[in-house]
Amino acid sequence: MKKLLLLFLLVPCIGFCQNQDAVFIKKMSDDILINGKAYEWLHHLTKKIGNRLTASSPFYKAIDWGKATLQVAGADNVILQECTIPHWVRGNNDEVAVTYFNSKNQNIQLHAIALGNSLAGKVKAAVICLNNFEELEKRKNEIKGKIVFFNYAFNQTYVETSTAYGDAGKYRYTGASRAAKYGAVGCLVRSLSGSTDNLPHTGAMKYNDSFPKIPAVALGLQDADKLCKMCSNNKVVVAMNTHGKFLKDTTAYNVIGELKGNENADELITIGGHLDSWDVGEGAHDDGAGIVQTMEVLRVLKAMNYHPKHTIRFVLFANEENGLRGGVKYADEAIAKKEKHLFALETDGGGFSPRGFSFKMSDEQLKKVQSWLSLLQPYGTHKLEAGGGGADIGPLAGDILKTPIAELLPDSQRYFDIHHTNNDVFETVNRRELLLGAVNMAALIYLIDKYGL
Amino acid sequence: MKKLLLLFLLVPCIGFCQNQDAVFIKKMSDDILINGKAYEWLHHLTKKIGNRLTASSPFYKAIDWGKATLQVAGADNVILQECTIPHWVRGNNDEVAVTYFNSKNQNIQLHAIALGNSLAGKVKAAVICLNNFEELEKRKNEIKGKIVFFNYAFNQTYVETSTAYGDAGKYRYTGASRAAKYGAVGCLVRSLSGSTDNLPHTGAMKYNDSFPKIPAVALGLQDADKLCKMCSNNKVVVAMNTHGKFLKDTTAYNVIGELKGNENADELITIGGHLDSWDVGEGAHDDGAGIVQTMEVLRVLKAMNYHPKHTIRFVLFANEENGLRGGVKYADEAIAKKEKHLFALETDGGGFSPRGFSFKMSDEQLKKVQSWLSLLQPYGTHKLEAGGGGADIGPLAGDILKTPIAELLPDSQRYFDIHHTNNDVFETVNRRELLLGAVNMAALIYLIDKYGL
Repeated sequence: MKKLLLLFLLVPCIGFCQNQDAVFIKKMSDDILINGKAYEWLHHLTKKIGNRLTASSPFYKAIDWGKATLQVAGADNVILQECTIPHWVRGNNDEVAVTYFNSKNQNIQLHAIALGNSLAGKVKAAVICLNNFEELEKRKNEIKGKIVFFNYAFNQTYVETSTAYGDAGKYRYTGASRAAKYGAVGCLVRSLSGSTDNLPHTGAMKYNDSFPKIPAVALGLQDADKLCKMCSNNKVVVAMNTHGKFLKDTTAYNVIGELKGNENADELITIGGHLDSWDVGEGAHDDGAGIVQTMEVLRVLKAMNYHPKHTIRFVLFANEENGLRGGVKYADEAIAKKEKHLFALETDGGGFSPRGFSFKMSDEQLKKVQSWLSLLQPYGTHKLEAGGGGADIGPLAGDILKTPIAELLPDSQRYFDIHHTNNDVFETVNRRELLLGAVNMAALIYLIDKYGL
Repeated sequence: MKKLLLLFLLVPCIGFCQNQDAVFIKKMSDDILINGKAYEWLHHLTKKIGNRLTASSPFYKAIDWGKATLQVAGADNVILQECTIPHWVRGNNDEVAVTYFNSKNQNIQLHAIALGNSLAGKVKAAVICLNNFEELEKRKNEIKGKIVFFNYAFNQTYVETSTAYGDAGKYRYTGASRAAKYGAVGCLVRSLSGSTDNLPHTGAMKYNDSFPKIPAVALGLQDADKLCKMCSNNKVVVAMNTHGKFLKDTTAYNVIGELKGNENADELITIGGHLDSWDVGEGAHDDGAGIVQTMEVLRVLKAMNYHPKHTIRFVLFANEENGLRGGVKYADEAIAKKEKHLFALETDGGGFSPRGFSFKMSDEQLKKVQSWLSLLQPYGTHKLEAGGGGADIGPLAGDILKTPIAELLPDSQRYFDIHHTNNDVFETVNRRELLLGAVNMAALIYLIDKYGL
């Protein structure tokens, strides 16, 4: 009988609360779409500061700007959380050169860029073109003294381009050492992209210390096709000249803005993106968008005069691209301080039209989140699915803290056209798409703060 | 007992058939994403032919190209359906000028473009800035001899920009005559856009024959804001000089490719877009995208060696932008010939990432379509909703034929930034987004052909 009574009391409340929530979320959406600052902030970050490779001078400028802008956006306080970061430099960019010699022994330049974390090297050798690691194993006896070219294509049949990226990523990340194992002197990789242009895409690679650290370079897609075709007809000689090196580790900061909780202040909700970028383009989508969307959520909660139950942290992570030291530091400190983390959300898939979120949490928690679908649908969310969580917040979800995490899922079609290239600039970001991402993030954070997980 | 038996026979079939359909749709998707020709076709249409105002010379070139390309794509036969079309010309584009005089009586140029169908006029008069028609009615006694400037803003709070466009459209379409009714000598309209730039957007207007046909011009958004601000402080004088005129009606064609049905050949499914565009930019999204997606559906059905039950017509409609004569002619002929039209689909919302379809059909039919959601979801569709149908196929859905119709719903955030401007060019179209639209269209056409409505 009591249960029945409770049910009667609850049923109208569910309807009423959902309606209250719908009204509040609409108010946030209207405010963001009209008064949102994310686009102007992104303009400053991309045009006044520019790209922000970890440990570079603009990266430190971005930290100062990030601190000041979190204050403007309304943080109760802003903390700089010190962390040690790697200091890789590409060397003289203009001198990165990959050329092949045509039948007249003329030297033809290819569109190429050294991979992040790769080291200096000057080699000239015959090229062997391989479609995948299986071919490498089969032809391991032909590798010695050659430049290995992994021409593994981005799989266009995957509807989500992030799946194709995940699939092809191992060639960029581990290809050089796997080739060096069999005596290769250099490594070329087809850019991780399905674009129609010829821009090369950089991105992280990692050497296996057991093998020689050979130069590793990505090629533009048209040049990759051209080189592959030539290799199938002739013996092709390529010259590579790269200048990457590591300087001594140095110090930087995660920038953390806080909005204090008024009920469970010691329970934390984290929302963030990464402040660093590669040293090409302007890091506009990757991950300037995530940074300014994070700040926009803070701005709108303050504009709504919303007092969260839990403490919400708005985090600009250091060093996602080539080390993840910021994310690791954030989790290490959480563990050391025995912090309670209710939930963490990252946005690092570009500032494109939002389509939902991907979650790493228990089935029960996911079911709860999915019960909010109708509240998020008006703003473009249709996916609330199991799977993700961003790189920086991954360590929070580790065995010790087991924090439930999630990532925003923007439309993925355009992202890998420009990802890690000179084309990742402000002009490719659409104001409304960027702001709608923030709307969905703000709504999710509001619901999790209000109803828990 | 028989019913029960039928049920036992049907249940596995439903599962099996859906699986068969899923496999077939995936095969089409893979083929389109790898071998699709829509992007290359769009490149030709935009770069070799360019914009295609009804009755202009490139419009006729596009008809020839459309006929040839439908044949290449695999049509059993291609018909040219003659129709009479209006022949509006902008006059000398370079001489369209809207200037205001600043306090020093200096003449400052505004970013402006004459509205489609508007006529020539040279006026110089004080400007009255109005936010909406309600203000026009309230201040009707102040209008005489002035230039009326309708500064009705695109409502940024609508998540779907098409809603904002529908809301603001009446100012462009009817504003001039409503102002002329009270003695206005010219009409300026804020462009129908929420963009961040200053490009003016053209588009159709219509005069009411009861009032003087005053020049009608759209302003870029930044200049609209500037002019409005000046009007609130000072008396502002603007000079307008436009050159639009109508030449004699002439003849053009709907281009119709057919794939003959092998069971119900006399029952028709129509899929199409419009071949004409405004005389700015390249008509890439509006509606070059719809044209090449239509052809792509034909190409993939042939590539799959699919033999439709019903006859499928791939229609490149003439004259959507400033007359709809192509769409009207198509329906008129269908009525005259007593054709049976099972379904019609139009795509005219830009070549952006698809999100589903909007339908004008009975609840029962819509329910049937919605039962296919899981087959379309892997390709981006999440909306199968009541509402739409394109302009060209609207006449088919009229009282006589009552054809069920639908339109593709691409993501709407970027469309009205470039719509009817010099920025609607090939470079703003993403290959995969364009092709994914075709994937969803092909899947829907396949399902309707197979299962009916």
